[in-house]
Amino acid sequence: MLDTLDTPSLLLDAAKMERNCGRMRERLAAHGVVLRPHVKTAKNVEVARCALGAESGPITVSTLREAEYFFDHGFRDILYAVGMVPSKVARSAALVRRGAQITTIVDSVDAAIGLVDASANAQVEIPALIEIDSDGHRAGIAPGDPRLLEVAGALGPSLRGVMTHAGDSYNCDGAEGIREVAERERAAVVACAHALRSAGHAAPVVSVGSTPTATFARSFEGVTEVRIGVYVFHDLVMAGLGVCDVDDIAISVLGSVIGHQREKSWVLTDAGWMALSRDRGTAKQRVDQGYGVVCDAAGRPVEDLIVVDANQEHGIIARRGGGAIDLARFPIGSRVRILPNHACATAAQHDDYQVLREGRVADTWERIHGW
Amino acid sequence: MLDTLDTPSLLLDAAKMERNCGRMRERLAAHGVVLRPHVKTAKNVEVARCALGAESGPITVSTLREAEYFFDHGFRDILYAVGMVPSKVARSAALVRRGAQITTIVDSVDAAIGLVDASANAQVEIPALIEIDSDGHRAGIAPGDPRLLEVAGALGPSLRGVMTHAGDSYNCDGAEGIREVAERERAAVVACAHALRSAGHAAPVVSVGSTPTATFARSFEGVTEVRIGVYVFHDLVMAGLGVCDVDDIAISVLGSVIGHQREKSWVLTDAGWMALSRDRGTAKQRVDQGYGVVCDAAGRPVEDLIVVDANQEHGIIARRGGGAIDLARFPIGSRVRILPNHACATAAQHDDYQVLREGRVADTWERIHGW
Repeated sequence: MLDTLDTPSLLLDAAKMERNCGRMRERLAAHGVVLRPHVKTAKNVEVARCALGAESGPITVSTLREAEYFFDHGFRDILYAVGMVPSKVARSAALVRRGAQITTIVDSVDAAIGLVDASANAQVEIPALIEIDSDGHRAGIAPGDPRLLEVAGALGPSLRGVMTHAGDSYNCDGAEGIREVAERERAAVVACAHALRSAGHAAPVVSVGSTPTATFARSFEGVTEVRIGVYVFHDLVMAGLGVCDVDDIAISVLGSVIGHQREKSWVLTDAGWMALSRDRGTAKQRVDQGYGVVCDAAGRPVEDLIVVDANQEHGIIARRGGGAIDLARFPIGSRVRILPNHACATAAQHDDYQVLREGRVADTWERIHGW
Repeated sequence: MLDTLDTPSLLLDAAKMERNCGRMRERLAAHGVVLRPHVKTAKNVEVARCALGAESGPITVSTLREAEYFFDHGFRDILYAVGMVPSKVARSAALVRRGAQITTIVDSVDAAIGLVDASANAQVEIPALIEIDSDGHRAGIAPGDPRLLEVAGALGPSLRGVMTHAGDSYNCDGAEGIREVAERERAAVVACAHALRSAGHAAPVVSVGSTPTATFARSFEGVTEVRIGVYVFHDLVMAGLGVCDVDDIAISVLGSVIGHQREKSWVLTDAGWMALSRDRGTAKQRVDQGYGVVCDAAGRPVEDLIVVDANQEHGIIARRGGGAIDLARFPIGSRVRILPNHACATAAQHDDYQVLREGRVADTWERIHGW
């Protein structure tokens, strides 16, 4: 049945996604923390519902376009988890007036003042979490920095709590390292929430989130919610970290074999970087998967074949580390499936998901893009 | 006026694009070769018309979606320049029946037979060029390989000539190296066309194409057409090769400053890899531009600031090689423009172009995506 799909196409194995979602729901429920899935990975309402196990629920977004799309599909409790700037308040306010509860994040007095002033002008309430820097990898206020209380003061009644993202967990080597990062992530936000409360501020929300730390953290004590995205699909970066098995990866790119270079033992496909993305997230891991792991049309990895290079609409398949390929297995027009390095990046290159159930295309789900 | 645009947005400086297009049109006209612009870079009809200096004309496409879109906008002479497989003949045939002249490429007997059989079944004529491998970088038949005549035989009356793409020109260091690649590119296809003609085949089309070789080639003798795409916008990879100046780069991504990390002298923006792409094409050049060169809102590069790292919706701006930034120049909410490593990849992340004339948004042009 995959033979009739246009290539390249983005395939989604529904059973694997449901398994990934179910496992994480159960894990977080057992720890008593709220799951607020980050919908930037899938940008699709059916996947978000699967993540929540419900028609709607709390979500995290990275763009206002996501907020608008999910609001239009019945989602009300939306955290916009990128530093807010005044120019984005008007669109946020429009959603609030329609009934959304939009919360956002800030990490400076200037941003806090900008948010408070712009939402007052728009005559809406847009509360904020203060972003905490738990690992030095990106934005946020470090634990112990006195600016925490200054930002809280600037937010005033708009303050709702604290959040962090342990991006450093992507650079770990195995579960034990990730557990250490997870504990630092937890300790950082819990300490900051305590500092805020000690100074008389209400800080009901203590929010953490990264798929690796959510998978391996020993404790969520003091944490109220977890924001995670990539786990719904998983990918080769997660597999390289030990966060999932390769068999858990729920999305793949279907490509057609368009040629061979016999002397080099290359198979050429029509799944280039436009279909796979330019993400090379496994390049820094122990096993570099190139632009992705090659599977047969049934989704089973084929020996140690990877996409070693990619042009816009060409992927070059070769054996990892070199060596001959039995090209007779890959005749012109035959189909292969490529597992992605980074689910968020690969999915972003596509307009829809071809949803597989029991090996057949059972549905087509849209994917939004833009901002 | 850029203050009112949502961020991130893709900006297109119309005057720079028109200058880039005009220069290349004049250069190729002076050499007496046909320009068949590769519309995969811009995926937009206004840009293609600027490239041609006409309402329509011969174009190169990399997807059937491009072929359909440009046909619907009046383009008839379309080269699909990715190895053709039988499953793509039906959509191609539908265009032919509507009046398109679709030519495609093959580089094996199997692909040639597949094309001839599938187009016979569809009762249309889809002629083909044989792809020649002029530099070992991807697909094609090497000059001197006897399979050239076997493929020609399999194509029979569907044979139209030869084509190559000198992808190796992207790995050169300066004009002289590119001139050598250009001469190899030219010599390879001219030799193959000669071999075909000597064997009694008609081979009227001799097609080459890469922006670096088209810019620097000394001779196009024996070549009938040139396929090039990125030159309409140019990018940092082209600037690094010496193919253009940084000031020729016609597209940029407008971002908002969303935060600072004072200790690290980082400026955080909302232009992450979703807006910039994951392309790191300058990483292997003499000057690594990270994820792009930072300009002020007027488009002037700011000292030696680059985007040193990118997450999905976050870009981290720092000084190339480290050092302090005057953060007061970048208040929260202020705007920056990022020049892209690779125009094709960055533009592909966006749904439209905000077209600037004299510094103001004069138009919004659509961009297609998908396959």
